[in-house]
Amino acid sequence: MWKTTRSPGVHGVHGGRVELGQGSSYQMTTRVSGDKSVSTEQLAINTIRTLSMDAVQQANSGHPGTPMALAPVAYKLWSDVLRYDPSAPLWPVRDRFVLSCGHASMLLYAVLHLAGVEEVDEDGNGTGQPAVTLEHIRNFRQLGSPCAGHPEYGDAAGIEMTTGPLGQGIATSVGMAIAANWQAAYFGRPEFELFDYNVWALCSDGDLMEGVGQEAASMAGHLKLSNLCWIYDDNDITIEGGTSLAFSEDVAARFKGLGWHVAMVDDANDLAELDRAYRSFLNNNHSPTLIIVRSVIGFGSPHKSNSHAAHGAPLGEDEVKLTKSVYEWPEDEKFLVPDEVRACFATGLGARGRRDREQWESRFAEYSQAHPELTAQWNSLQKRELPSGWDADIPVFAPDEKGLATRVTSGKVLNAVARSLPWLMGGSADLAPSTMTLLDRETDFSADDYAARNMHFGVREHGMAAACNGMALANLRPYGATFFVFTDYMRPSMRLSCIMRQPVIYVLTHDSIGLGEDGPTHQPIEHLAALRAMPRMLVMRPGDANEVAEAYRAILKINDRPACMVLTRQALPTLDRTKYGPAANTARGGYILADADGGTPQVILLATGSELPIALEACNQLSAQGIKARLVSMPCWELFDEQDEAYREEVLPPGLTARVAVEAGVRIGWDKYIGQQGRFVGMSDFGASAPYSVLYEHFGITPEAVVAAAKAAVG
Amino acid sequence: MWKTTRSPGVHGVHGGRVELGQGSSYQMTTRVSGDKSVSTEQLAINTIRTLSMDAVQQANSGHPGTPMALAPVAYKLWSDVLRYDPSAPLWPVRDRFVLSCGHASMLLYAVLHLAGVEEVDEDGNGTGQPAVTLEHIRNFRQLGSPCAGHPEYGDAAGIEMTTGPLGQGIATSVGMAIAANWQAAYFGRPEFELFDYNVWALCSDGDLMEGVGQEAASMAGHLKLSNLCWIYDDNDITIEGGTSLAFSEDVAARFKGLGWHVAMVDDANDLAELDRAYRSFLNNNHSPTLIIVRSVIGFGSPHKSNSHAAHGAPLGEDEVKLTKSVYEWPEDEKFLVPDEVRACFATGLGARGRRDREQWESRFAEYSQAHPELTAQWNSLQKRELPSGWDADIPVFAPDEKGLATRVTSGKVLNAVARSLPWLMGGSADLAPSTMTLLDRETDFSADDYAARNMHFGVREHGMAAACNGMALANLRPYGATFFVFTDYMRPSMRLSCIMRQPVIYVLTHDSIGLGEDGPTHQPIEHLAALRAMPRMLVMRPGDANEVAEAYRAILKINDRPACMVLTRQALPTLDRTKYGPAANTARGGYILADADGGTPQVILLATGSELPIALEACNQLSAQGIKARLVSMPCWELFDEQDEAYREEVLPPGLTARVAVEAGVRIGWDKYIGQQGRFVGMSDFGASAPYSVLYEHFGITPEAVVAAAKAAVG
Repeated sequence: MWKTTRSPGVHGVHGGRVELGQGSSYQMTTRVSGDKSVSTEQLAINTIRTLSMDAVQQANSGHPGTPMALAPVAYKLWSDVLRYDPSAPLWPVRDRFVLSCGHASMLLYAVLHLAGVEEVDEDGNGTGQPAVTLEHIRNFRQLGSPCAGHPEYGDAAGIEMTTGPLGQGIATSVGMAIAANWQAAYFGRPEFELFDYNVWALCSDGDLMEGVGQEAASMAGHLKLSNLCWIYDDNDITIEGGTSLAFSEDVAARFKGLGWHVAMVDDANDLAELDRAYRSFLNNNHSPTLIIVRSVIGFGSPHKSNSHAAHGAPLGEDEVKLTKSVYEWPEDEKFLVPDEVRACFATGLGARGRRDREQWESRFAEYSQAHPELTAQWNSLQKRELPSGWDADIPVFAPDEKGLATRVTSGKVLNAVARSLPWLMGGSADLAPSTMTLLDRETDFSADDYAARNMHFGVREHGMAAACNGMALANLRPYGATFFVFTDYMRPSMRLSCIMRQPVIYVLTHDSIGLGEDGPTHQPIEHLAALRAMPRMLVMRPGDANEVAEAYRAILKINDRPACMVLTRQALPTLDRTKYGPAANTARGGYILADADGGTPQVILLATGSELPIALEACNQLSAQGIKARLVSMPCWELFDEQDEAYREEVLPPGLTARVAVEAGVRIGWDKYIGQQGRFVGMSDFGASAPYSVLYEHFGITPEAVVAAAKAAVG
Repeated sequence: MWKTTRSPGVHGVHGGRVELGQGSSYQMTTRVSGDKSVSTEQLAINTIRTLSMDAVQQANSGHPGTPMALAPVAYKLWSDVLRYDPSAPLWPVRDRFVLSCGHASMLLYAVLHLAGVEEVDEDGNGTGQPAVTLEHIRNFRQLGSPCAGHPEYGDAAGIEMTTGPLGQGIATSVGMAIAANWQAAYFGRPEFELFDYNVWALCSDGDLMEGVGQEAASMAGHLKLSNLCWIYDDNDITIEGGTSLAFSEDVAARFKGLGWHVAMVDDANDLAELDRAYRSFLNNNHSPTLIIVRSVIGFGSPHKSNSHAAHGAPLGEDEVKLTKSVYEWPEDEKFLVPDEVRACFATGLGARGRRDREQWESRFAEYSQAHPELTAQWNSLQKRELPSGWDADIPVFAPDEKGLATRVTSGKVLNAVARSLPWLMGGSADLAPSTMTLLDRETDFSADDYAARNMHFGVREHGMAAACNGMALANLRPYGATFFVFTDYMRPSMRLSCIMRQPVIYVLTHDSIGLGEDGPTHQPIEHLAALRAMPRMLVMRPGDANEVAEAYRAILKINDRPACMVLTRQALPTLDRTKYGPAANTARGGYILADADGGTPQVILLATGSELPIALEACNQLSAQGIKARLVSMPCWELFDEQDEAYREEVLPPGLTARVAVEAGVRIGWDKYIGQQGRFVGMSDFGASAPYSVLYEHFGITPEAVVAAAKAAVG
């Protein structure tokens, strides 16, 4: 959409002077030194700073202060340390760089531009064009530019994930580091230690204040993820003023308590200290690392540095000029990129990255010879392909009046799929015995066993969901499980699954008042509606064992959307599919489960999950009373809505307006299917603590209530 | 609902023997000692344990292990330390006891029963009956019993809040401690230090793993809340097995890093060590305290202690007997309460609490003489009454085409109300300059200024919401502010506001794609739907300055429900109310803003918030084209739905089905008002990063689109 443009004609640095094609030039005296490389470094750092200032100023919106502060941190990391080939930004074992403080997006865009990270097309092939051009940067925060307000995954190669909501970047980085360790353990062989990589995340005080950041840090420390490095921008400034207004904890002490290695850098401009800190991470093999970097927000700005005024607004034209003057930068130049700086990245990062990647590919070719089956798996994993026969072991459940809880069938199906899908892995937020998500042939993922597939996320739903995002970004097929009501604890990460189109599977049991005695705090009422409202999320609420099986079959084939499997605690009958519509129709989201004789019903009942058998019983009672009813099972609204109109109208004929929906949740959203005059049997307020059968009676979610509603609808 | 019953006839302890009315007796040898009081203590502790075991066994559901472990901790605290009068459980300055590990609810019910906490009626007056009877306990987890699966606020006096979702109890306790400090500072005078109290929370590893617990702990440490004590049940056991599966951090080191005093108790059964730890809290005046108590889950159970088998399921009849045998308790007795134990609580806690409370009341009477105005305020606060004239300063905004952002008018109204409502206090999660929630005449709440009203919650939305719940439970009128999209970070606490009916005001700005450049992660799309789905929540999205004013007037009068004020970043015109329907109708949730001549429209437009002016412009365009349209402003669905049918049908005549809704969010829920055939102009996927006016065009939310939809509807 945006044309690639060349940078302004800056032809190089000679003896401390930059000669500009347009005729301007300036003396490099920020660091008076005979060492040319030092000057070039400073030039590169100031290019990041000035691009950031200029872009924010041009957009008249954005966050200049942090890129100005952290330019040396990012420069040093990318230039000298990161294992990354700008010409192959999808190289699977590249180091990951996550900008958790996503508001500082210009820092990332500037680096991606200067590093010459190459654009990739939808198939992941390089286009030969830069991923981030100067024109993109000039259009920072404008419609269509990949340089969005916050980094958006998929908008440009080099953006490893969407960030902006604080805490998400660092928390997701834990999942990336887990994935790296898992694939190193699973695919690696003693002579081929090829599959590990490091994960770096740059974060702010906000990331560390957010609870999800703590959950992630605690998990990372527990798992001893020594391939994980967080760099904390300790600048004493928050939006409301100094951090002293709200944040006075000893971050280093906290992280040491969490089992992290902590390194300190007293001045973000001290490249030697930064290098020392990065090396201390690289040399550490037993814990994650936190590098605390003291920085000055808006560094260089005479009137706004070290102030929250530099955080979230343009500096202003005059202040930009004054700041450029401090940098000894041509005051009137905008979006200026000295060729020397590009050359610096190309000869540093570019050459090193290409060499590393080519060496790796050479070794990987040898590995392919030695381990063809693993190689085939590796290639499938990278392409998000399912192995052939992946679903062969999914059971078909025999009709059974007593039946099984859908959480139980979920456990069976997960285990069946896991046997042929080695990178299906996950766990629960300390509820595995209840969510039935343990893979029974697998071991526990721990610091002593990174090849294992059973994750123990602890009582950290939010950290779990973020970790699953990170694992999915590494192309694993992760699942995270908890009670359905606790989706509230992890919505920000679930939303990021949707925004980033990551196929995380959320296994959510205890899905309604049907959980019984645990009472209102544990009974989801509004959660189906709240998740159906989330764009791109597939909300699956299967109504018997075979719908569970088919729901998994459907969602596992979809590799660009997350899904919620919403499951019961209590047993549901397994329906006799010789009598009823085929469970395979679950993939269509909604289907006719039972129909009136002749297919001309007087009333349509719609139900999901544990209310399906209630509606079926109502159907039978209506039939006995001579009222012809159709029962539509609606396990997934989103998939139903995506069917063609003919199918949808076959299932729900527009002329047939006598309709009753049954669901143990709130009505909101159902009007779309039942109409304003439709009847609804469900919940309107919070639940209560009692055995589940008592609750269904108490709240009137019974076959008799459905029959009464249907009769009223038929009129 | 449940009849009060006497305990079985246990007549007392004599010389180490308990004589039971039913003829059974047993030797007290658990602690061989001539000291009768020690034996009585042990008897009380074992009564808590056995009541818990029996109740869970009878319900065949629940969590026996933690009450068995923590019985000594709770006993010692209530019996010897807590400032609490069981005969006046709403005494405003009582110490608060929060069971953050809510699954251990039987621990609380047993203590409330043994302490003889008195029932109160809806007006807060004692009924002379116990709040928790043995019959209630026998009906643990049954419909109608106040002994619900998890403690439910309002079900019995002595339950200070609803707990169960982990982390919420401890996080809410921070708000309670803030409230205590504020009221001590505001109402107290040097000679009358009457208004402070201590807040105790008992918590589990789960509470400490949850991110919200960390946010709260960091906040409490920062604010140096020395009236706050958390007691951590360190039992090494989680649901999935040992805590070593997922949780290996050094909790003490973390909390020290957060600025807490940390005390250790090596054995939960060591009453002297517990006492020492409690005293170390009472003697600490400069930081919150964490007491880490090493305990054995299911203490005493021969086969299930120290195992997750004791966590969430009944022990089984046989194991209950074996365990009672270990306690030297009559094996076949169930729900046995020795009179000695009641007497022990009555002479200890009961007598001490009554004396403390009577002394306080005597001093308060003197205070009332000395400070009648403050006393009147204190009484209003306790009754959740608004001072007369509280809304006199709310401005009326003059018509203005350019207008104001509703976040700006919100700030003006909040400030206007704050001047006459001294306990309206709050702040934002580090976004005050954006949410416009600073009270401009007030100071910053900090360890140095507890009388202040501007809270700085830090980048901790979840902790903020939980703290607001705690402040509301102390009858303050708190507000918490952030960007609307970040309600996802605090939903669990918002849900508890609803369940507990606490009138927290959530001030939520940047409410749609209208925020512009910050892009998809910051643009709420599904959040209106997701919050409208939450029972009891009032979701207010005012469409101009005077709707903001009236929305505040409406919600501040409602003291038993939380509310969301959903506000724009961008300016909206202030409507000329001489031409349009009165803003006061905002209190009715929906009203006719502009009507067709003669009141007989062909089409109804419905809109909220920033889409109101778009719909109004469409209305005018339609009128110019000879199409008669009515515009209904719908700032609050919940309040509209509560109007009588006549009013609702006057606004939305059932026969008039040509309807178009306009809202920059998803459609879900709108079908209720516009019908299946209704048109919707809004969003269906995530937003984008660009200036807001570009985005409205890009996503087709324009007067022209509304006009087109209206014409299509009219047909």
